[in-house]
Amino acid sequence: MELGMIGLGRMGANMAQRLQGGGIRVTGFDPGEQARAQVGAKGVAVVASLQALVQALPAPRVLWLMVPSKVVDATLEALLPLLSPGDVVVDGGNSWYRESQQRAGRCAAHQVDFVDCGTSGGVWGLQEGYCLMIGGEQAVVSGLSPLFQALAPAADRGWAHVGPVGAGHFSKMVHNGIEYGMMQAYAEGFALLEKKAEFALDLAQIAEVWRHGSVVRSWLLDLSADALRQNPALDGIAPYVEDSGEGRWTVSEAIDLDVPAPVITLSLLERLRSREDNSFTDRMLAAMRNEFGGHAIKRSDG
Amino acid sequence: MELGMIGLGRMGANMAQRLQGGGIRVTGFDPGEQARAQVGAKGVAVVASLQALVQALPAPRVLWLMVPSKVVDATLEALLPLLSPGDVVVDGGNSWYRESQQRAGRCAAHQVDFVDCGTSGGVWGLQEGYCLMIGGEQAVVSGLSPLFQALAPAADRGWAHVGPVGAGHFSKMVHNGIEYGMMQAYAEGFALLEKKAEFALDLAQIAEVWRHGSVVRSWLLDLSADALRQNPALDGIAPYVEDSGEGRWTVSEAIDLDVPAPVITLSLLERLRSREDNSFTDRMLAAMRNEFGGHAIKRSDG
Amino acid sequence: MELGMIGLGRMGANMAQRLQGGGIRVTGFDPGEQARAQVGAKGVAVVASLQALVQALPAPRVLWLMVPSKVVDATLEALLPLLSPGDVVVDGGNSWYRESQQRAGRCAAHQVDFVDCGTSGGVWGLQEGYCLMIGGEQAVVSGLSPLFQALAPAADRGWAHVGPVGAGHFSKMVHNGIEYGMMQAYAEGFALLEKKAEFALDLAQIAEVWRHGSVVRSWLLDLSADALRQNPALDGIAPYVEDSGEGRWTVSEAIDLDVPAPVITLSLLERLRSREDNSFTDRMLAAMRNEFGGHAIKRSDG
Amino acid sequence: MELGMIGLGRMGANMAQRLQGGGIRVTGFDPGEQARAQVGAKGVAVVASLQALVQALPAPRVLWLMVPSKVVDATLEALLPLLSPGDVVVDGGNSWYRESQQRAGRCAAHQVDFVDCGTSGGVWGLQEGYCLMIGGEQAVVSGLSPLFQALAPAADRGWAHVGPVGAGHFSKMVHNGIEYGMMQAYAEGFALLEKKAEFALDLAQIAEVWRHGSVVRSWLLDLSADALRQNPALDGIAPYVEDSGEGRWTVSEAIDLDVPAPVITLSLLERLRSREDNSFTDRMLAAMRNEFGGHAIKRSDG
Repeated sequence: MELGMIGLGRMGANMAQRLQGGGIRVTGFDPGEQARAQVGAKGVAVVASLQALVQALPAPRVLWLMVPSKVVDATLEALLPLLSPGDVVVDGGNSWYRESQQRAGRCAAHQVDFVDCGTSGGVWGLQEGYCLMIGGEQAVVSGLSPLFQALAPAADRGWAHVGPVGAGHFSKMVHNGIEYGMMQAYAEGFALLEKKAEFALDLAQIAEVWRHGSVVRSWLLDLSADALRQNPALDGIAPYVEDSGEGRWTVSEAIDLDVPAPVITLSLLERLRSREDNSFTDRMLAAMRNEFGGHAIKRSDG
Repeated sequence: MELGMIGLGRMGANMAQRLQGGGIRVTGFDPGEQARAQVGAKGVAVVASLQALVQALPAPRVLWLMVPSKVVDATLEALLPLLSPGDVVVDGGNSWYRESQQRAGRCAAHQVDFVDCGTSGGVWGLQEGYCLMIGGEQAVVSGLSPLFQALAPAADRGWAHVGPVGAGHFSKMVHNGIEYGMMQAYAEGFALLEKKAEFALDLAQIAEVWRHGSVVRSWLLDLSADALRQNPALDGIAPYVEDSGEGRWTVSEAIDLDVPAPVITLSLLERLRSREDNSFTDRMLAAMRNEFGGHAIKRSDG
Repeated sequence: MELGMIGLGRMGANMAQRLQGGGIRVTGFDPGEQARAQVGAKGVAVVASLQALVQALPAPRVLWLMVPSKVVDATLEALLPLLSPGDVVVDGGNSWYRESQQRAGRCAAHQVDFVDCGTSGGVWGLQEGYCLMIGGEQAVVSGLSPLFQALAPAADRGWAHVGPVGAGHFSKMVHNGIEYGMMQAYAEGFALLEKKAEFALDLAQIAEVWRHGSVVRSWLLDLSADALRQNPALDGIAPYVEDSGEGRWTVSEAIDLDVPAPVITLSLLERLRSREDNSFTDRMLAAMRNEFGGHAIKRSDG
Repeated sequence: MELGMIGLGRMGANMAQRLQGGGIRVTGFDPGEQARAQVGAKGVAVVASLQALVQALPAPRVLWLMVPSKVVDATLEALLPLLSPGDVVVDGGNSWYRESQQRAGRCAAHQVDFVDCGTSGGVWGLQEGYCLMIGGEQAVVSGLSPLFQALAPAADRGWAHVGPVGAGHFSKMVHNGIEYGMMQAYAEGFALLEKKAEFALDLAQIAEVWRHGSVVRSWLLDLSADALRQNPALDGIAPYVEDSGEGRWTVSEAIDLDVPAPVITLSLLERLRSREDNSFTDRMLAAMRNEFGGHAIKRSDG
């Protein structure tokens, strides 16, 4: 089977290699020359334009998008005129599922099939395989199964056709919401261990022991143990936590569906908070306390 | 009626004056010479020792404690041997209600009555009157009613005998838990107004307009409007919010009673968070994201 | 000054009366005959169609919309073709501020001015006056000041021109977010008092005493005291709390602006939770506990 | 090596078997005849009294307590007079670490060593091994290493001496706090999938696919997948979630240490909430809404 990989960033480059290693013939494209060169050096064929990519592939073509969610629309706009009826576009990135539903409509107008594939696994996927949550029509998804078998940790597990178009990215969105909550739970727990000066606990040791037989063992714990082993005091790391869109979408979706999801929601808010500088909320609280109780206000330097 | 006021800090000094203004004869004591001098200058009799205070009062004596919660036990220990059966001790400070219950027992061993009086009103109480939540035996509380009438905003309102010993401080504790939640709600709302650069809102104006006819009008809003009028950008105020014990006790009590109180609880946690420096939780999150996704870590300066 | 009031539900009917009582000549319209009849019986002129309303008013006309947010667009669509350049539409309901901004554009295409007016006060507004947060162009808002003076608690307070179109509904949205948080704080506190069987507290008494001199005094507390006086055990009231859109918009806006607003957010989620029946989240937790610990699952009747 | 196991409930019985299978000679005691009989039938020697247990063991004796936390003190009181200097007591249950510290002192008065061992693994520990977090003096813990090697998943991992007495139960307490947060995150996510009727998602399928290659793979997810496979709609399970003490202790400890742990805290509160019937908080909210807005109250049947 052949596939054109559009987007050769960290994720796309690794996936191209894993596919190729799994017997899929991959041609890659990325607008960046350096990205192309790096993937080319790994033995993956690369081309310098979407036109060249489309021409290099046998019909019906399979194009896999692995680009930032904000350029998916622009990419589709450039790509669709080049495609033929029966071609398939897979969006393997972190797109919002409602946009995926709309994009399927736009593809259908060109008689091009659309599949949304939520992809988890991060930088470890190349080696361990990716978890794939796939949305689309049954026949289309079936036709792509060799790709999913090559990308997943094993041919028979780690990938699933979970529903119609949109269902793949929806499942991935919820997956990331859960991820936020789990990460926050671990981080709070380790912070508590760290603060308990009385016991002088070795956090890396505790993370390691929990990996074996405990209720909280997980892959995120494996990674935490690794991070703490390398840098036990987490020196030099700023307390600044980014978020990508999936957490926000999950919180918004939960409210739309009237599902209270307090822990996932708070996990997102804590990330926002980590990036706040000179919180107005807290200054307002300090000002109020001063007003009613005459409590001293701590002066800021600024 | 006469009363001995023990503790002439901000609260005790103001209360002594309000009582005196209300026709109660007050003798004050504070270990600090300066505190005594300041209150003396306001026309309140002061003495320099607990012994002198006890001797200055006619039996049965009424001693009102207005001292930090952590010195209540020491004060009682020094005071009780000086008292006579039938004397009354009122703890008007922010003590934990369970300690008040124990202290009532200790007083009873000396045939001294104990009353716990939760006192709200802050620095405005001198002028506007204090809200008093009183726990104790019916007969004892009744005997003290002239004091409560003088301290409250009016003789017939703003004070109440709410239950047995402990009930006063319990009610005050819950009052403060509510206060935390209200303050946090306002502060979050003002922060949202402030962040909406598109509208260049005048927060003091909005606080002022809300004071008249809106659902959120309150005394805390009056104070907020005042604070924002004086310092619209809250310049020079550090985003650092202290907490006194009542919030912690409320959270703990709610859990003990199996009552979920998420908003009061979060309001306390936000105060803890405001005082965190270089949060380990957030560094742990950043480290995990780097481990699984290769996401860049922001380096700290330190 | 004259005004056409569109929408004679609970809010619109009361506002028409207050305006009329304040010297404004009001003509009302509502599609419901009963609503028209009730307002007519209070001495307000009513008409049976938008056409009749527009014809009844002198140019330049002022039309005040007091309709559910989901019918604002349909109402505008019917209304705009009837209006003339220089007329003004005020949306006094709980619309989303971004829709108000779009509607101003649609009005502008007809040379009709648009003003968004966030209105607080509920059923008490007729008697106590409404709090009005107004967005729009300076000249337009100024021209309407007699209306605002009549609606507000007093001519010189309780109303404010807070910014350009959208700013009025934005401020009202945040106001309601704060309201959610305050209500939840009080409700949690009263639940805690209620659960403390040891003290057999009289909640109405405590609510009443807090109204005088305490830090938590507010209009919501006044109403709480009234509710508890009438029904101390809140008998016959289902633990079911509706939410209108403003809370959801506030939470969404806060996340969009990267402002963590945990207490306002949790207050919304608690309302969602109050309406859940047979929570899947909780059943999943019970199932997990059973899986790892063999903990007994409580069987449901269903 | 020999060991006396006190408490042959679910955990104690399984641990006795795993120890025996690992070459440790175990004698078991439980006050319940049935518990003794069941363990006896598995080939573990059992005795009918603490006296018999102590006599059956060679000095220096090792006694492992696996009893409910609330009977640890009573058990120790009965046991300590029977022991000799140099004997060791291990508390393998879920005790509060501060009580463990006090108990070590009580044991020391008898020249008996005390070790606190946090034990995770639930009903799966018999087969997969237990995760053990151990607090105590170095020499004492070292002497017990054959026991830990037999109980852990492997001789060289899954157990660790994490610090002085108390550190074992402290680490286990934090472990359980994290567990609460992780469970809540998963449960919220699955509830969101379940509520999305549009996609008719198969939750067991999604749980299964996440187990392979995803960021959220974990042992709790393995169990969740199993639970959903057996009972996809979680029929017959009441939305009622118990909590044991560790979550409460974790929340309390976090506040004592000034560490904000919002997700762990909320996870506990959600469990309290799951057990609420006719929430007073929610009735209070409904009553307030009715007061200010005339919003209809939903009547309860009761």
